[in-house]
Amino acid sequence: MAEFFKVLTPNDAWRKFSEHYNPTPIPEAVAVVDALDRFLAVAPVAPHDLPEFPRSTVDGYAVRAADTFGASGSLPAFLDVVGEVAMGRAADVALTPGQTAIVHTGGMIPPGADAVVMVENTQRADEISIEVLKAAAVGENVIQVGEDVRAGEQILPIGHRLRPQDVGGLLAVGIVTVEAARRPRIAIISTGDEVIPPDQRPGPGQIRDINSYTLSLLAQRAGADPVPFGIIPDRRAALEGACKRAVETCDIVVLSAGSSVSYRDMSFDVISELGQPGVLAHGISIRPGKPTIIGVAQGKAIFGLPGNPVSAMVLFDLLVAPAIRLHLGAEPMGAFKPQVQARLSRQIPSAAGREDHIQVRLETRTGELWAVPIFGKSNLIYTLVRADGVVRIPLDSLGIEQGAWVTVTLHQ
Amino acid sequence: MAEFFKVLTPNDAWRKFSEHYNPTPIPEAVAVVDALDRFLAVAPVAPHDLPEFPRSTVDGYAVRAADTFGASGSLPAFLDVVGEVAMGRAADVALTPGQTAIVHTGGMIPPGADAVVMVENTQRADEISIEVLKAAAVGENVIQVGEDVRAGEQILPIGHRLRPQDVGGLLAVGIVTVEAARRPRIAIISTGDEVIPPDQRPGPGQIRDINSYTLSLLAQRAGADPVPFGIIPDRRAALEGACKRAVETCDIVVLSAGSSVSYRDMSFDVISELGQPGVLAHGISIRPGKPTIIGVAQGKAIFGLPGNPVSAMVLFDLLVAPAIRLHLGAEPMGAFKPQVQARLSRQIPSAAGREDHIQVRLETRTGELWAVPIFGKSNLIYTLVRADGVVRIPLDSLGIEQGAWVTVTLHQ
Repeated sequence: MAEFFKVLTPNDAWRKFSEHYNPTPIPEAVAVVDALDRFLAVAPVAPHDLPEFPRSTVDGYAVRAADTFGASGSLPAFLDVVGEVAMGRAADVALTPGQTAIVHTGGMIPPGADAVVMVENTQRADEISIEVLKAAAVGENVIQVGEDVRAGEQILPIGHRLRPQDVGGLLAVGIVTVEAARRPRIAIISTGDEVIPPDQRPGPGQIRDINSYTLSLLAQRAGADPVPFGIIPDRRAALEGACKRAVETCDIVVLSAGSSVSYRDMSFDVISELGQPGVLAHGISIRPGKPTIIGVAQGKAIFGLPGNPVSAMVLFDLLVAPAIRLHLGAEPMGAFKPQVQARLSRQIPSAAGREDHIQVRLETRTGELWAVPIFGKSNLIYTLVRADGVVRIPLDSLGIEQGAWVTVTLHQ
Repeated sequence: MAEFFKVLTPNDAWRKFSEHYNPTPIPEAVAVVDALDRFLAVAPVAPHDLPEFPRSTVDGYAVRAADTFGASGSLPAFLDVVGEVAMGRAADVALTPGQTAIVHTGGMIPPGADAVVMVENTQRADEISIEVLKAAAVGENVIQVGEDVRAGEQILPIGHRLRPQDVGGLLAVGIVTVEAARRPRIAIISTGDEVIPPDQRPGPGQIRDINSYTLSLLAQRAGADPVPFGIIPDRRAALEGACKRAVETCDIVVLSAGSSVSYRDMSFDVISELGQPGVLAHGISIRPGKPTIIGVAQGKAIFGLPGNPVSAMVLFDLLVAPAIRLHLGAEPMGAFKPQVQARLSRQIPSAAGREDHIQVRLETRTGELWAVPIFGKSNLIYTLVRADGVVRIPLDSLGIEQGAWVTVTLHQ
């Protein structure tokens, strides 16, 4: 039995894995309107200034600021109204000293003008002129050419995930296509003679496959395209065949194996023989999730996750999601996980040298947020369904006292 | 000019709106595998116990616990091995006193057995019997029938958003379809003579439409189906026609209007005439975003957002996303917005009676997180592109001192 001959801490496991796994993001052209949540493979550059013409930020009168210096309610400046700038048009007037033109919010400032006086600070003098009741400084109420973004400026960095406003910023300068990192293909392999598809009625001793679905959805959220490999029976040839096909056709392979020793040994043997460098970690000092296998073969990442759903999800977040981000050219640990602070409802013991991940429910009691541990066995999917988040107890901790403040990472 | 005759605080505006807007979530059948992030309209109930048979959590020997009482390394209990339970099969043996059967992790416990002894705590005695080196308590290493979830138990509440593990929990009990709230249709109307589609080259005085796209993406994320209405020219008949069609065919209508007074007056007049009760708020004491119109007509929600992108996004988060959640039967303010604590890099003044939303960039300086305000004009989309999040300064605050800790709500 090759059981746990390479048990590593979570950090050491990641370090060793990332020394051997160096995927290069592959750029592909994506329409910006379809690129929400995609990661940039090439940094886009503004092709022109934005705005390309000086714009007014208010409704009022475009002026030469010098013409308004010293103007006040008691001593207004008189200016001749020589036109109105229509929205969406070039200004068809140019101001000379003593002249002004009506402008609307967002409209173009006419040549010769260098400021806008708000309509509230003016008064009609007669048919053709106005009184300016307040001096305007040069540039006041004007967005200058290139003030939003300058021609040639890098808009966003490589590895950035596009948010709604980023899509807006790209479209604003006419960029309608970006080079995004291709989403890695991630093979999802479930194994076990007892596992059947979820739409079937289990016979005695059988259970429905759920890991294929939860892991696929987690992979999708993390930025990958899941490739379902179905349920592989507990026979070495079958598992070997599926893994070989997965390594050939996908970038990352996730096995959700049974938890019995014979299954684990079989997964270990199969992963070992897929190629170099092979198995890098066999067992991680974490609970739940110790019987995890990490491997790299032919440049592909291979994760043998425990079959029980709680362990599978904890290990996915810890290892597989960061591997997907490596593939996307993003900071592997940079995925923002929403967290809240809460008080622990009861003491949790832990063992030094083991990182514990405790599923918790959040409850508000007399105005304070409390984290209530859910001590279901990690074989129970409803431990996760009932949980709002997870509390991590570090490797060197002996546990956490009742009432202590803890950080809860929320399940999204 | 009907300008701002009903300026309300953000809270009062929402309260007034929610008194008049009472959408009923409409259930529709959705395949569970496609239901990630959908909101439940009907609470699903477990059709059977999970698991349906007692399962072992370890590799070892199923026993009658009473047979092992007092067993130890020095005084082992001897048991006859009468069979092995195959994975995915009913146990084909039943234990009588003094008997045991081999079981694997996840396998069925045979009738007569009430505990499992880990293989590590046993030793082969001879061909047909083992020594048990440690007593087992009743139920030890066994998942009982219904321990994960019980038949008839409500699995998740109405209004719950499905997470990956919820999909797993539903599939585990064979629920492959749920009744989810239909995604509301949200009309997105951009207006302005100066606005052109983003794939066109703007002439002098023209700008590209970006709000249609950012607002559509925000709506999609919030759980709605955006319906693009294109760019409507600045003519009353055109706007009226678009709004009427939107109210007839959609659940929520969002206008991203120009910001000039004439535009705002026109939006106000058009919304006023769409039906009862009409305009509920005209102006909100918030910066940016004051010139916002909130209306309800014929049971539909109508939001006239300022045309500038920063205001439009702030107001979308504040009002439109909660309205979408009302429509989905979810807690309107319950959307989790990830937040971090950071120190403010410079003092921000504010006026009492106005809620300020300051866009900030996050920076790490000597190990501390700092929020650096981006004081771009709210007309600039790049204010949002450069921002990592937003700091809210409450209505009654006169500002925040440099170095103070603030809560930053992150842009996702």
